[in-house]
Amino acid sequence: MKTLLLISIAAALATSSIARSNQNIAASSSLTPPEPRHVILIIGDGMDEQQITIARNYLKGARKKLLLDEMPVRAAAGILTITDNVDGKMVYVADSANTATSMATGEVTSRGRIATSAGSDRALPTIAELAKAAGYKTGIVSSASVTDATPAAFMAHINYRLCENPSQMAAVTYSDIVLGNCTRYMKSAGGPGSIAQQLANSQVDVILGGGRKHFEVDAEAEKLTTGELARRNGFSWVNSLQQLQQAPYTKRLLGTFSSSTLPVRLRGENNRLAETPTPSLLNRVHRYLGDVTLPSPMVCEPNPDFTNIPTLKQMTDTAIAHLAKDNDRGFFLMVESASIDKQSHERKPCGSIGEVQQLNEVLASALAFAKLRPRTLILVTADHAQAAQLIPDESLFSAYPIPTYTPGYVARIVTPQGSILAVNYATSNFIMEEHTGAAVPLYSNAEGVGLIPAFIHQPELFGIMKDYLEL
Amino acid sequence: MKTLLLISIAAALATSSIARSNQNIAASSSLTPPEPRHVILIIGDGMDEQQITIARNYLKGARKKLLLDEMPVRAAAGILTITDNVDGKMVYVADSANTATSMATGEVTSRGRIATSAGSDRALPTIAELAKAAGYKTGIVSSASVTDATPAAFMAHINYRLCENPSQMAAVTYSDIVLGNCTRYMKSAGGPGSIAQQLANSQVDVILGGGRKHFEVDAEAEKLTTGELARRNGFSWVNSLQQLQQAPYTKRLLGTFSSSTLPVRLRGENNRLAETPTPSLLNRVHRYLGDVTLPSPMVCEPNPDFTNIPTLKQMTDTAIAHLAKDNDRGFFLMVESASIDKQSHERKPCGSIGEVQQLNEVLASALAFAKLRPRTLILVTADHAQAAQLIPDESLFSAYPIPTYTPGYVARIVTPQGSILAVNYATSNFIMEEHTGAAVPLYSNAEGVGLIPAFIHQPELFGIMKDYLEL
Repeated sequence: MKTLLLISIAAALATSSIARSNQNIAASSSLTPPEPRHVILIIGDGMDEQQITIARNYLKGARKKLLLDEMPVRAAAGILTITDNVDGKMVYVADSANTATSMATGEVTSRGRIATSAGSDRALPTIAELAKAAGYKTGIVSSASVTDATPAAFMAHINYRLCENPSQMAAVTYSDIVLGNCTRYMKSAGGPGSIAQQLANSQVDVILGGGRKHFEVDAEAEKLTTGELARRNGFSWVNSLQQLQQAPYTKRLLGTFSSSTLPVRLRGENNRLAETPTPSLLNRVHRYLGDVTLPSPMVCEPNPDFTNIPTLKQMTDTAIAHLAKDNDRGFFLMVESASIDKQSHERKPCGSIGEVQQLNEVLASALAFAKLRPRTLILVTADHAQAAQLIPDESLFSAYPIPTYTPGYVARIVTPQGSILAVNYATSNFIMEEHTGAAVPLYSNAEGVGLIPAFIHQPELFGIMKDYLEL
Repeated sequence: MKTLLLISIAAALATSSIARSNQNIAASSSLTPPEPRHVILIIGDGMDEQQITIARNYLKGARKKLLLDEMPVRAAAGILTITDNVDGKMVYVADSANTATSMATGEVTSRGRIATSAGSDRALPTIAELAKAAGYKTGIVSSASVTDATPAAFMAHINYRLCENPSQMAAVTYSDIVLGNCTRYMKSAGGPGSIAQQLANSQVDVILGGGRKHFEVDAEAEKLTTGELARRNGFSWVNSLQQLQQAPYTKRLLGTFSSSTLPVRLRGENNRLAETPTPSLLNRVHRYLGDVTLPSPMVCEPNPDFTNIPTLKQMTDTAIAHLAKDNDRGFFLMVESASIDKQSHERKPCGSIGEVQQLNEVLASALAFAKLRPRTLILVTADHAQAAQLIPDESLFSAYPIPTYTPGYVARIVTPQGSILAVNYATSNFIMEEHTGAAVPLYSNAEGVGLIPAFIHQPELFGIMKDYLEL
């Protein structure tokens, strides 16, 4: 399986080298060595237009702009996923596994898959693997576990996203419910093992995020944990902000700064989330009678758990420093702000807002780097849309003497401007909200002018990055 | 009031003429007369990213593109509205009245207002009025009543959008509920009268859409209907497709092709709309038990009422022909596909899809005109976001043995590709869904390259059009 993947990577590089041979000759005819090239792909998980607007309104005020809004190029990316069959049928709402696979590999696959093909388990070469094979350094940073779907799809190949560590290969369970398995990817079946084990065996230069617990499990067919395996393979494995800042530049770097997903920056007042409106007795008799009490307004407050861990910006800055050190070829770096999505699943709008803020700080770091190294393509996008909707706090139909309110959950956030931002979650009665299927925003810095049409399908992002890195 | 508005228009033109005097001198120094300039502003009411994606998936297939997707420029526009006070507080979800006012006048106002200022009833000069005063022809086309909020905000000035005809000035009622009034805009109070009366008295060259009933009411302080008043003021008033096609080019043109909103092109199978899922008895005991029956899948079908009326494209083509005839100065034309929004309010996804299709046909006409007359700026945007969400037909959490379903309404549409497109409506328990507050898409043709940053606030659209027309 691994050998096949290496052949795929080599083949992909060979084909594109031939196609580009003339232009390479032209470029190399000048005697100066080619300028190093960099791609920084920033993914806001679930960061759709609703999430961006909610964050803009809260963080800056509706009349102002996020740093994101200042980007010179803005496009939209249509997401694509299919059923888990060869030539599967179209499915209109995606997950982070298949969308990250689209961006990382240029291929359309089914939900839950990590850089493997629908229905056939073909390992799909990723932009990070192709870049590494061509001499670039590569880095992956996430505020989720580094084994979570988005980061994993750039570094690993497996049929099911939740096989994050060796203990989950035979069966992934949640409250005794079996959700899936990855038996055919087990080491004993000749496979590459769990996502954590694949990361430990990968050639990636910098891997930073959460998910320590996945590296504290014994590796398959080894007498050490996946974290120790990473160390044996040449990674510094660091687990705190202090260790991160002291990590030597001479070794590859694996950082896991919490057991699972990193804590988020903001939370609702007293940890409140969106709540259901409370109808009066009369309103229970008929929905046009009586009245309804909406959840009381609240502010967002700092999350007390968001301490002693690196911010997404600190991880990004460290990753850039490590990747750029003594590097005359360039790098590929993916940074994910993961919990815009995770907090939206849990109906926590303040949480999502804080993570859009973290993404904007990462963008500031990327833009600062690009000022020093002009051949840096910065792309910012989302993988898929989410459930949260900004709805009117005063209904459009308030002139009618009828209580009008959401059938779902609503949080009424008092913004620093003193208005109320009502965020609605109403895609599911489950403990988690669903994703939605809208096309997602795609931004780039000036390096992307002319490279990015106003609308692309998400897998085309792979080709844009591959061409920019001349792979 | 009217005199004040004329002074405002003159002042706005004078200020900008001074600012642009140098460039005008430079332009006029060549001996050829300046090329005529045209702005075609196409507004998809409620056409947010969810609506566009739903329409793309149904009309073309997810892997393909709408004509809209081929536009060279794509940006986002943040919507702005305030409470009805001078320096009102920010309100995060808008309506079509205040958003059309933003685009038409560059000003932020409160919901329900038509080109008047929040808290102070100041008449705000519109782009159509400024263009007309500067010698351009002007046209307004809508699939709503021509007196509806979006078209009205380009041609009329009043405190409340529902004062569409003279009978509604003292009190706008719905099922005996008084929703508002426009007494201070009555003729008897020295005001300009209802929206229909203002249109009849306007200088607009072409007004096409629905809303005949508003022109069959006696005009205030006149002995004729508002429609007859329009005729007296020099309009041909036509009421059928045939009359439209035969209308003389020598007169201004008012067309009202149905009593109210024009019928839409598509509807759900047997006129079905989104429906609530039906929980089993056990599921009513506890939402994690039993099962839930979702509405059965359906196709979209042609709406039988969509006959003997002009399509939005036919109205647009006629408007362009009339406006371009013997015109060496150029024109401003606004075309609204109104029922993307109206059908979404009523939980009718097929209806919205058909109206996105109509908008794309209008765009094709606009692009064809721009091929012949290169100085044509085509802008396509939405006024605000809507309630509809594309949700997973198979839940992301289907591995859990728990029924997961929307708390709102869902339509499960079978697409021509044979997959199911699940459209969720869950912002309100009322008979109508709410708007949502996300920033909206903004597209332009190549004439807009360099004129439109990746993010603007919606009122900036006014300045972009004004500058393009050199007003």
